[in-house]
Amino acid sequence: MSYRATVAYDGTHYHGFQRQSASSRTVQGEIEAALGRIGGKGRTVYGAGRTDAGVHASGQVIAFDLEWKHALDALRNALNVNLPRDIVVREVQEARADFHPRYDAISRTYRYRLYQGQVADPLRRLYVWHLPNPLDVAAMQEAADCLIGTHDFSTFGTPPKGENSVRTVKQAEWTIVDDEQHFTITANAFLFRMVRRIVGTLVMVGKGLVTAPEFQDILAARNSAKAGASAPPQGLTLMAVEYPKED
Amino acid sequence: MSYRATVAYDGTHYHGFQRQSASSRTVQGEIEAALGRIGGKGRTVYGAGRTDAGVHASGQVIAFDLEWKHALDALRNALNVNLPRDIVVREVQEARADFHPRYDAISRTYRYRLYQGQVADPLRRLYVWHLPNPLDVAAMQEAADCLIGTHDFSTFGTPPKGENSVRTVKQAEWTIVDDEQHFTITANAFLFRMVRRIVGTLVMVGKGLVTAPEFQDILAARNSAKAGASAPPQGLTLMAVEYPKED
Repeated sequence: MSYRATVAYDGTHYHGFQRQSASSRTVQGEIEAALGRIGGKGRTVYGAGRTDAGVHASGQVIAFDLEWKHALDALRNALNVNLPRDIVVREVQEARADFHPRYDAISRTYRYRLYQGQVADPLRRLYVWHLPNPLDVAAMQEAADCLIGTHDFSTFGTPPKGENSVRTVKQAEWTIVDDEQHFTITANAFLFRMVRRIVGTLVMVGKGLVTAPEFQDILAARNSAKAGASAPPQGLTLMAVEYPKED
Repeated sequence: MSYRATVAYDGTHYHGFQRQSASSRTVQGEIEAALGRIGGKGRTVYGAGRTDAGVHASGQVIAFDLEWKHALDALRNALNVNLPRDIVVREVQEARADFHPRYDAISRTYRYRLYQGQVADPLRRLYVWHLPNPLDVAAMQEAADCLIGTHDFSTFGTPPKGENSVRTVKQAEWTIVDDEQHFTITANAFLFRMVRRIVGTLVMVGKGLVTAPEFQDILAARNSAKAGASAPPQGLTLMAVEYPKED
């Protein structure tokens, strides 16, 4: 039987989602090991999005095949007792045999958290980018508006082999949540490092180093040398992956 | 010169605030080591409250003596670059020579965070107590109301040697913050383990195992065998320590 699951994890102690060498601890590797312990065979976990080392997820979607004779909640619980505490399966559903979490997804939503304060907050250090000086959030929003729509995003990242750099951004919004600034971005798909490089460049706008029209020129240049540095990984969380209604 | 500082820390990797044996990593030990690196001599850090292993602080208050010829902000920054990233000095002020953060305090405020959800949230696992079943928050508040005032709190903790168990609680309030329940409690001082044992027993009220009048009887019994188990440490944060205006 084929299953689909929604997974949350704290990426702090992982070399990203995707399995790499045997010596790197990855989220995919841990989930495959848990599946093995409850009767799964072989390497069978597929994920919707590769998240980098240190990046978190609250709504990653995975798929796997398994012989399972009990209820879906029992499968979720069996996986959770076999997973480390920083990876949690939130929900399991049956899926059609050819469901693929990456190729079937129609969009992904990421959130990036900034914390502005004179000194860092140790209780949030693993989940925010701390910036000691105030940012101009209105300017960052004005710049972010130009991301909406279909563009070649070469400036902000590289595509997987064999794909082009054109992506469609549906939402790119800054919100103020208590003493944090959150950037929420939804696109049909993302290039490698794209969200972190966009945020790194938007923060330059927030600091007054780049204007909103200049940000638009940087996007249009399709030149990665024009972008700012990547924002650090710990501020980023994969929030959700969306599928067509029939899934 | 004498100084007073407000300190925040993530208690996850510490055996509590107070220095113990040389082999136990403590917050006090780390701050003393940082002071030593910027010219401090001997063991000179005093804290307002002992926090247990795994308990956090956003407003612990400490005092120390130091020869320092530069600005207060420079002292704060010098300490922070010499501290591990999970301990942060938020602010430094000059203090009178005989200021003692514990004996001069007139009250302390703690907050305890509960998260109710079917499955745990890995991104909050170090900062909340996860409870899978819904709680009756109104009943927990009704029970908590009887804590207000001056009582013998022997049921919920033990005093330091030579002190009695009478304490005065000024605030004991449940609030709902997004998908969490927060318990905020202010008292002139607390017994050892008092907040965690109160929360553990209030959660029994929330689950319907103990009624609010029974909770009042448990307090009145002055018998620690009547209390529920301690709530786990990671949900607890020392928020603030209050002093008379002249300090």
